[in-house]
Amino acid sequence: MRWAPLTLAIGLAHANEGMWMPAQLPVIAKDLKATGLALDPAKLTQLTQFPMGAIVSLGGCTASFVSPQGLVVTNHHCAYGSIQFNSNPQRDLLKNGFLAASFAEELPAAPGSRVLVTEAVRDVTAEVLTPAVKALQGKARVDAIEARQKALVAECENAQGYRCNVVSFYGGLQYQLFTQLEIRDVRLVHAPADMVGRFGGDTDNWIWPRHTGDYSFYRAYVGPDGKPADFNAANKPYTPKHHLKLASSPLNEGDFVMVTGYPGRTSRHALPAEVDFTFGWLRPRNIQAFGDWLDIIKRETTGRRDAEIKLANTVAGLGNAHKNWEGQQASYEGSDILARKQAQHEALKAWVQADAKRQAEFGASLARIDALLAEGQAQSKRDFLLSLSAPALLGTARDLLQNAHQRALPDAERKAGFQDRDLPRRKAGLEAFERRFDAQTEKAKVVHFLTQYLAQPAELLNAGYLQALGLQAGMSAEAVKARVEALHAQTQLTDKAERLAWLSRTPAEFAQSSDPFIAAAVALYADDQAREARAKELAGQVQQAYADVMKARIAHKASQGQAVYPDANGTLRVSFGKVAGREGPDGSVWTAFTTLRGITAKHQGKGDFDAPAEQRAAIQKGEFGPYGVKSLNSVPVNFLATLDTTGGNSGSPVLNRKAELVGLLFDGTLDAVISDWDFNPKTTRSIVVDARYMQWQMRYVDKADRLLKEMGAL
Amino acid sequence: MRWAPLTLAIGLAHANEGMWMPAQLPVIAKDLKATGLALDPAKLTQLTQFPMGAIVSLGGCTASFVSPQGLVVTNHHCAYGSIQFNSNPQRDLLKNGFLAASFAEELPAAPGSRVLVTEAVRDVTAEVLTPAVKALQGKARVDAIEARQKALVAECENAQGYRCNVVSFYGGLQYQLFTQLEIRDVRLVHAPADMVGRFGGDTDNWIWPRHTGDYSFYRAYVGPDGKPADFNAANKPYTPKHHLKLASSPLNEGDFVMVTGYPGRTSRHALPAEVDFTFGWLRPRNIQAFGDWLDIIKRETTGRRDAEIKLANTVAGLGNAHKNWEGQQASYEGSDILARKQAQHEALKAWVQADAKRQAEFGASLARIDALLAEGQAQSKRDFLLSLSAPALLGTARDLLQNAHQRALPDAERKAGFQDRDLPRRKAGLEAFERRFDAQTEKAKVVHFLTQYLAQPAELLNAGYLQALGLQAGMSAEAVKARVEALHAQTQLTDKAERLAWLSRTPAEFAQSSDPFIAAAVALYADDQAREARAKELAGQVQQAYADVMKARIAHKASQGQAVYPDANGTLRVSFGKVAGREGPDGSVWTAFTTLRGITAKHQGKGDFDAPAEQRAAIQKGEFGPYGVKSLNSVPVNFLATLDTTGGNSGSPVLNRKAELVGLLFDGTLDAVISDWDFNPKTTRSIVVDARYMQWQMRYVDKADRLLKEMGAL
Repeated sequence: MRWAPLTLAIGLAHANEGMWMPAQLPVIAKDLKATGLALDPAKLTQLTQFPMGAIVSLGGCTASFVSPQGLVVTNHHCAYGSIQFNSNPQRDLLKNGFLAASFAEELPAAPGSRVLVTEAVRDVTAEVLTPAVKALQGKARVDAIEARQKALVAECENAQGYRCNVVSFYGGLQYQLFTQLEIRDVRLVHAPADMVGRFGGDTDNWIWPRHTGDYSFYRAYVGPDGKPADFNAANKPYTPKHHLKLASSPLNEGDFVMVTGYPGRTSRHALPAEVDFTFGWLRPRNIQAFGDWLDIIKRETTGRRDAEIKLANTVAGLGNAHKNWEGQQASYEGSDILARKQAQHEALKAWVQADAKRQAEFGASLARIDALLAEGQAQSKRDFLLSLSAPALLGTARDLLQNAHQRALPDAERKAGFQDRDLPRRKAGLEAFERRFDAQTEKAKVVHFLTQYLAQPAELLNAGYLQALGLQAGMSAEAVKARVEALHAQTQLTDKAERLAWLSRTPAEFAQSSDPFIAAAVALYADDQAREARAKELAGQVQQAYADVMKARIAHKASQGQAVYPDANGTLRVSFGKVAGREGPDGSVWTAFTTLRGITAKHQGKGDFDAPAEQRAAIQKGEFGPYGVKSLNSVPVNFLATLDTTGGNSGSPVLNRKAELVGLLFDGTLDAVISDWDFNPKTTRSIVVDARYMQWQMRYVDKADRLLKEMGAL
Repeated sequence: MRWAPLTLAIGLAHANEGMWMPAQLPVIAKDLKATGLALDPAKLTQLTQFPMGAIVSLGGCTASFVSPQGLVVTNHHCAYGSIQFNSNPQRDLLKNGFLAASFAEELPAAPGSRVLVTEAVRDVTAEVLTPAVKALQGKARVDAIEARQKALVAECENAQGYRCNVVSFYGGLQYQLFTQLEIRDVRLVHAPADMVGRFGGDTDNWIWPRHTGDYSFYRAYVGPDGKPADFNAANKPYTPKHHLKLASSPLNEGDFVMVTGYPGRTSRHALPAEVDFTFGWLRPRNIQAFGDWLDIIKRETTGRRDAEIKLANTVAGLGNAHKNWEGQQASYEGSDILARKQAQHEALKAWVQADAKRQAEFGASLARIDALLAEGQAQSKRDFLLSLSAPALLGTARDLLQNAHQRALPDAERKAGFQDRDLPRRKAGLEAFERRFDAQTEKAKVVHFLTQYLAQPAELLNAGYLQALGLQAGMSAEAVKARVEALHAQTQLTDKAERLAWLSRTPAEFAQSSDPFIAAAVALYADDQAREARAKELAGQVQQAYADVMKARIAHKASQGQAVYPDANGTLRVSFGKVAGREGPDGSVWTAFTTLRGITAKHQGKGDFDAPAEQRAAIQKGEFGPYGVKSLNSVPVNFLATLDTTGGNSGSPVLNRKAELVGLLFDGTLDAVISDWDFNPKTTRSIVVDARYMQWQMRYVDKADRLLKEMGAL
């Protein structure tokens, strides 16, 4: 593996800024050593060696192997869907937690759960952006890139049990092929009680001081032949090549820490026009809409524990995004972020214009990118309420119809997401659907947003869409409600067998269906295809221009001696920093660690602060064991670290200088979530659940000695 | 002035604990000097010298003279009633603040407002508890003590313009006579906008970090002869003997500070039985009841700005007590306070029993005090809902009838509170009544609590009371509502002239009235008198036993070399300490100062966090003038100090080592308000508005240069 030379410049923009690709680490080896890393940084570039070989993706979250028997630790909120999947009002694992007494008692994780072990990364930019592809424009360019990606993936996936992806870096400037072992028999091993794993709930989310025991355990299983397999009682625990060990020496303030994980998405390289659209138009509306949505769920599910359990994961996700966005928006408003982004962009333009060769290479793209982005933004504005208000079952119907059309094509010619390799995930999704679907809530939500959509001037509405669903511009909430009720009363898609049956039906069979959502999908199909084609046409133009702008920016930074790490894109990254408090709100300072005392202090016996009686008794007893810290006179619960992370890093192991496990990353702080767009070293901290708290809780409260022994920690 | 020798022992229970009587200060002179006081501590015992001569009481709050022309500074929340009194929806001084452009524009303070200058304190224990009095028991004892007190007061008040009080210390063990000059023409000079003076509102009340500009200015006026006089345009500003000067040198963390003021009430010497009753029975009910009451006010006044203004002061007071009590209760529950109080009490008992002489002196009282307290507590339980539910106008009627009966007696024989000296205050109260009375809210409140009262078993109810008001046990809320409506529809007491007219009517005239509240007062009179007599009988027994227990405790402490300061009782005290942060909630530290940045950070443009646009513009401008502190890169707004204070200290000047004004005390923190019962040096801090913030706001936002010049600060 080699990294393209243009990012091999040296020097960091800020200490501890950067979610670095493992291959980039030698470039910043000096900083790593200076900050305290005891390993050779080159070791971290070897994905199949220790410690990187122990780090896995759950898709959306990060996790790590912590025993030779495939035991995986991640955040409680990452395993939440699986805990929910196994819960019902009679056996409320969400509330009470879960501890398998033996391997046999381990429970299947939620359908579609995967443990993904990255085994290789290869730069495939030249294979994707071939000279022939580079000569294309618009939709043709996007189609060609997609075809190249699919071919690379198909070739890679010849090896059974592997999942491969071609991922774009720097806005389509570079492409890398990731090869991941895909373990699909994943089981729930242990989760603490809800009010340990989620202590503080939404109230404390993105907040410091924090006291959340955000950890849970999965186990990866493979077939008797050692290869990934579907769930089967005969399967055996997977033997990972490497696993992490719990730290043997105490972690203190100021100590080196690093985090290895799969951060999802950042926008640090976003152009001023994107920043302005996001915070000037989109976010305020998103915040309002998600707030409304949360209110609707609360109103409709109150008193119905079954519906509450079904929507618990949705509520957690919406609430999380809502609070994050509010935090970002609050930091953005009144800040100079846009002005700085504009100044940087103007400086880039000036640098390009100052040189004829640069002008020839980048000038045209720099000149047209804003207009292209504006076109996409105009479409986003038109579609905003439309997507929010679309019934979930209409989405299912459209996806099933698309699938039927694509199945008629040879596998290699199908759209990404509709190939044979995607079928198991689609099936799992259709099966799991009803575990997260509550008709009463869904209908109330659709009525709310559809009424808003239809209240807009008629010329802004999608006439075909209205016709397909039997709607009219300006309809009253009552009329919308009647229509939504009728659609849901007539559909069969709430039946699992019926949903799955559509997976194998032909477009002709769809055309004959009287199911209102299937019929609407059919009526909308041509328009949907046309809209998709237009979107691809624009995407092709954007990719071309955007990649040039990013190339110009990287060259500009290189001319200033600065390395550029790519924005997060769901691929494996390493951040490093140290355990450190920071300034709190004016008049306060945040210390690096919280302790068990804070749980007692926050406990209210209700709502988000209802610590279990067993835990409170154990705290009261004051037995800290080897997990206590003398200077704290308690067990450290959570800690702050100067680690640059974002969503997707949840569950990431936090390692000390010897690459031993000291905690699990699970959050940031609300006044610094703007770091996804604009990094501020003074305020940006990650929040980590201390491995000592996890072990204390497992040993003294949950009696999970079996797992502690398995991890070699007892 | 000399202090009784038994408290002249040395040594403090805790550093910075204690609200010391000025006369006690020489006892702790060493500590004062060690902590940093630059004055001779003996100077602080001289009430008519600098600086004590500049400190005044407003009755319930403290204030101080800050110019030779009688300018008085206190808290915004202490002048709140006067700002409210001068506000209406058209001229909303509460919201916008007020600055008199000249002496002529200064506004009369709320009726009954007083500036009280303590000029002398004399120990009168021997004159109150004469051998003859000491021989009495029960009601006779209380009556005799009251008669002695009245005689001492009457003699003292021979001097015109003075108000005298005999105050009990250590639960009736000692008595002191206070002589105060009573200035009764008090005018409002300046108050900042509500969202400066009350920034953070109830949300931030008792909270750190804090950013409240809790200051306002009064001026004391006297007649042309220099003597106290009623309001008159011809009156002149009072010339105080001494006034405070604003600090000329910067205040830093760790600096010595002291506070001089009138703390209202603490219960540090409370017996275990009192602690247990308060937190085990009374407080939880009080918290619930005040919460209900606040909800009722909010519900009934929403949308009626006039009613909101009328009840603003009530809401502030109720909300303040409610939050304080919640804080106390939270600290108490799960604590070892009761166990420690019990252990101390047992130790005292053992010490008394160990010695025959001590046993003879204190044994009997120690043996019976708990039973006496239990009797009072049983009565409190019976009366709890009765007092909450009593209509305010019934209270007025009862007070007026009592006044009529007492007026028939010679002045010296009347009950305390009903002498000629009390008439002006009673009159002012009757006049101001309607400024704080909203019939709709009052009726809703009475219905709420009366329904609860009547829902109790009939045998617990006061049958005479029910009959007098036409109520029945177990009445439904609707029936209670109808009755309360009828009572209020028929009464004339909502009319100011009518209320005042009753001041001069005879008991016979009361007996003939058909006003329902007057008639009820007449019907209840005999029972009220009997209940009062029974209460006095008990009070006499309690006083006797309690004083002995306190005497025993003081002797016990003296035997251990410890000084005992008396519980706060509304008399002048001095506390000292230093500017200091502390541990915050687990995972945080509170710094000593907040800054202007925090105002910007907290500003939400609504609710409790709606900083005025002019202020935000001035902060944005960043002009700090001489009020800025380099290390803070801002103006200090509020600060924390290890000063032992309680309610009544509000408005107290905080002085530096040279007795210059550095701030105004206005609050404590919620997790330490339990210090009224149990002092904890680790958590107890007072919150002070920094005089530099006050001056910055006055100069750069409110343009109050005239006042700054008058104070010699510009």
